[in-house]
Amino acid sequence: MRAVDIIGKKRNKEANTEAEIRFLVNGFVNGEVADYQMSAYLMAVCLNGMTEEETEDLTRIMIESGDVIKLDKIPFKKADKHSTGGVADTTTLILAPIVAACGGYVAKLSGKGLGATGGTIDKLESVKNLDTQCDGEKFERLVSELHLCVASQTASLVPADKLMYALRDVTATVDSIPLIASSIMSKKIAAGADVIVLDVKFGNGAFMKTVDEAEALAAAMVKIGKRMGRKTVAILTDMNEPLGTAVGNGLELKEAIDALSCRIDKNSKLMQVSLFIAEQMLILSDVAKTEEEAQNLIDEALKSGTALNKLKSLCEALGGDTACFENTDLLTKTEKQIPVYLNKTGYVESVDALKIGNAACLLGAGRQKKTDSIDYSVGIVLLKQKGDYVKLGEAVATLYVNDEKHIKEAEKLVKEAFALNCTKQEHKSSIYKVINFEKI
Amino acid sequence: MRAVDIIGKKRNKEANTEAEIRFLVNGFVNGEVADYQMSAYLMAVCLNGMTEEETEDLTRIMIESGDVIKLDKIPFKKADKHSTGGVADTTTLILAPIVAACGGYVAKLSGKGLGATGGTIDKLESVKNLDTQCDGEKFERLVSELHLCVASQTASLVPADKLMYALRDVTATVDSIPLIASSIMSKKIAAGADVIVLDVKFGNGAFMKTVDEAEALAAAMVKIGKRMGRKTVAILTDMNEPLGTAVGNGLELKEAIDALSCRIDKNSKLMQVSLFIAEQMLILSDVAKTEEEAQNLIDEALKSGTALNKLKSLCEALGGDTACFENTDLLTKTEKQIPVYLNKTGYVESVDALKIGNAACLLGAGRQKKTDSIDYSVGIVLLKQKGDYVKLGEAVATLYVNDEKHIKEAEKLVKEAFALNCTKQEHKSSIYKVINFEKI
Repeated sequence: MRAVDIIGKKRNKEANTEAEIRFLVNGFVNGEVADYQMSAYLMAVCLNGMTEEETEDLTRIMIESGDVIKLDKIPFKKADKHSTGGVADTTTLILAPIVAACGGYVAKLSGKGLGATGGTIDKLESVKNLDTQCDGEKFERLVSELHLCVASQTASLVPADKLMYALRDVTATVDSIPLIASSIMSKKIAAGADVIVLDVKFGNGAFMKTVDEAEALAAAMVKIGKRMGRKTVAILTDMNEPLGTAVGNGLELKEAIDALSCRIDKNSKLMQVSLFIAEQMLILSDVAKTEEEAQNLIDEALKSGTALNKLKSLCEALGGDTACFENTDLLTKTEKQIPVYLNKTGYVESVDALKIGNAACLLGAGRQKKTDSIDYSVGIVLLKQKGDYVKLGEAVATLYVNDEKHIKEAEKLVKEAFALNCTKQEHKSSIYKVINFEKI
Repeated sequence: MRAVDIIGKKRNKEANTEAEIRFLVNGFVNGEVADYQMSAYLMAVCLNGMTEEETEDLTRIMIESGDVIKLDKIPFKKADKHSTGGVADTTTLILAPIVAACGGYVAKLSGKGLGATGGTIDKLESVKNLDTQCDGEKFERLVSELHLCVASQTASLVPADKLMYALRDVTATVDSIPLIASSIMSKKIAAGADVIVLDVKFGNGAFMKTVDEAEALAAAMVKIGKRMGRKTVAILTDMNEPLGTAVGNGLELKEAIDALSCRIDKNSKLMQVSLFIAEQMLILSDVAKTEEEAQNLIDEALKSGTALNKLKSLCEALGGDTACFENTDLLTKTEKQIPVYLNKTGYVESVDALKIGNAACLLGAGRQKKTDSIDYSVGIVLLKQKGDYVKLGEAVATLYVNDEKHIKEAEKLVKEAFALNCTKQEHKSSIYKVINFEKI
C-alpha cells in the first residue's frame, strides 16, 4: 500500500477502505506517512468529502491511536454532552449536576476555551485552588461515587486527532464536516460515553454560521454515534445572540450557581437549552422514560438543592475552595465594574454574540492563543437581552475589569453589539431542531 | 501574509493574487513555507483549478526561482519544441536538424526518459562518448554557430519546479492542467525560447488519455506562451499507436538518421508529425512566410544532406564518435535479435503504444526510476504498423536483446499489442488539431 495511491483515490472522489485510512492515520502518527501527504489527503477530504462509512472508520481509527477510558465497572449508562462552542454558554455547569442529581452518570472531559468561545474547564478553574486534571482512576471514582466528573482532556486520549488538528490548523483544512464530526466524536467515545447529546450552535457567535451547515455537522455526528452503538442526539441552537447573561469564567460559574439555586427564570434561553439537554440525557440513559418524567425529576433536583450540591461536591473533589457557593461575589471581584449605556431607547432587536464574546476576550476573559493566560474574574454581564426595553439612562451591560488597557475598545464592541428597534421582537425558541439517532 | 490564508482562498475557489502565489512558491523554495502547506495548496489547485492569470503568474514566479538562459546576443528568434512524451517519438532528432539547416535557430534543453516514454537526451547519448551536459556559454555558442543545440537540463533552471514536482509525485497532485502547463512552459521560457511548438499527445501511450484532456493542456500552454510574449503553437497528435517504427534509444537515433537520409516515406506518421512541427517552427521564426515556402526549404535541406550534417555536427560538438552516421549498426548491436510472430493473419487494426513502450522498458531501454541505468542498444523495431497485412509466418516486430531475463514477458506484451482485423483500416492523419496563439 502506498500513501500516494490512497490520496489519489480521494482526489478522484473514490471512497477509501478502512485499511487505507488506517494506513494513512497510523502512518502519520508513527512518522511513516509524511505530513505533506496527510495534508494533501486532508485537502482532498475537504473538497471531495467522505462517505458515512469512511467517517466512521476515521473516527474509530483515531480512537484506537491512544488510550480509551473504560468505565465498565459502573453498570449503568454514562452520559456526555458536547457543545460546538458559544458565547455565554454555561449549560454544562447547569445540566451536568442536574443529571447527576436525578440519578444519571455524567462523565465528561472538556477542553480550554479559545477566542470568543468559553471553555467549561476555565469556568470550573475560576474556583480557588480547583484543579481539573484527573487520572483515570480518580475520574472513574468520581463518576461512580458522585455520578459526575468534569475534567481536563489528557494528552494520551486520541493523539491522532491532536496531530491532525495541528496540521489542519495551518493548511486551511479545518472546515470540513467529516473531519470536524470525527474529531469531536472520537474524543467523546474515547472518554467512555454510552449516551451523547450534542449541542450544535449556528449563527455569528458559532463556528457554523448557517443552520444548514450546523445541521449537516449534527447529522454527521449522530450518524457516527449510531454506527458505533452510542445513543446520540443532537440539537441545533441559535448562537446569533449570547445564550445566558454572563460572559467570562467566574461570571458564568456564578450564573450556573444562580441557575441551580432557582434564581433564574426557567423560560430564559439558557435554562431552556440546559434543561432540554438534561432531559435528553436522562431519557437516553434510561433514568426517565418520558420527557414529563424527566422534567419532574429535574424539578425535584433543583428545588431540593441536590443539583446545586452535586456541583459543589464536584468542586470540592477537584480540590476547590467552595466558599464561592455561599458568596458568589468571590468569583467576580474586579477592580472596576463599568456600566455601558447606548444613549438611545427602544426594544433590543438583537445582541451580536461574536462582538460580546470578542469584547470579553479583550478584557482578559479569553485566549487568543492556547498558551495565553486568562483572568477568571473579568467579563461582561448583559443587563438587557433580545425583546427587553431600554429606557434612557439605563445601562445595557456591565464590564467587569481589572486591566484598563482595552476598556474603550471593549465598550465600543458591546455598544455595537446592541441593535434597537421601535417594536418588540417575538421571542423564538432557542432550540431550532432535534436530530435523534433513532430517526436518522 | 500567511500561507494558511492563501491556501484557504484556493480551497474556497477564489483566485490568488500574484503576491500570494509568490509568497507560497518563494517561501517553499527557501523553506519558510512548509512542504505540508505547499502540498495542501497543490491539492486545492488540482481540485479547484487556476485562472489563466494565476497560471501565468505561477509560471513566471517559477522561472524567477532560478537561472534564465539569455540568448540575446543571437539577433534572431530562437525556437524550441516540446513533446508531452510518447512511444517511438524521435521527432526532435529529425526536425531540429532540419530547422537548423533551413536557417532557423533551435535551442533545446531536454530531460531523460522515464517509464515507457523515451527521452531525447538518452537517444543522443546512445552515440559513443557523447555528453549532453553543456554550460551556458557552450550552449549559446552552439546555437549561434551551428543553429542547433540539444542539451541536458541544468539543475539551476527553474528549481521551484523541481521541488514542486518531487512533492506532487508523492501527494497525488501531478494530474492538474495548470500545474503541468506551468511546469512545462516555465522550463521552455527559462531556456530562452522565443518560439515554442508543443506536441501534445493523447491516447493510451500518452500522459493525457483523451483528446479533451490533451486539448485543455495544449490550450493552457498556448495561453501561457501568448501572455508571456512567446509565439506558441500546439498540435494534438495521436499516441494510441507508436509514432515511428523504432522503440529504444540507439534504434530511434538510427531511425532519425534514416529519416534525414531520405530513407523513410514522407507520408509515414513519424515524418508527417516531424515535418509539420518543423514547418511551424520555421514560420514562427520568420524564416519562411508560408507553409509552401517552409516545405521547399525542408525538401532542399533533406535532399542536399545539410539536415543530416547538422545532426552529425551536433553529435561531434557534444564529443560523440560519429562513426555511427556511416554505420548505423553500431547503434543497435545486441547479443540477440528475436523476431515476434503472431500465428495469425489479417490487417493490423491497432498497435497498443503503451504495451510496446513497456515491452521496450522491460528489455532495458527505459527507466522505472530516475536513477536506473539503461541499455542504449536494446529495444523493439516494429515491422508492421496499422493498416499493414500480416501473412502467416511473417514477423510483426524484432526484439533487440542483451539480457535474456525479460524476453518472454516483453514478447508477450508485443503480441498483445497487435490487434488484427479482416478489413483494412482507413489511415487517419496523425495530427488531430492545431492550436495557434494568434487564434486563441
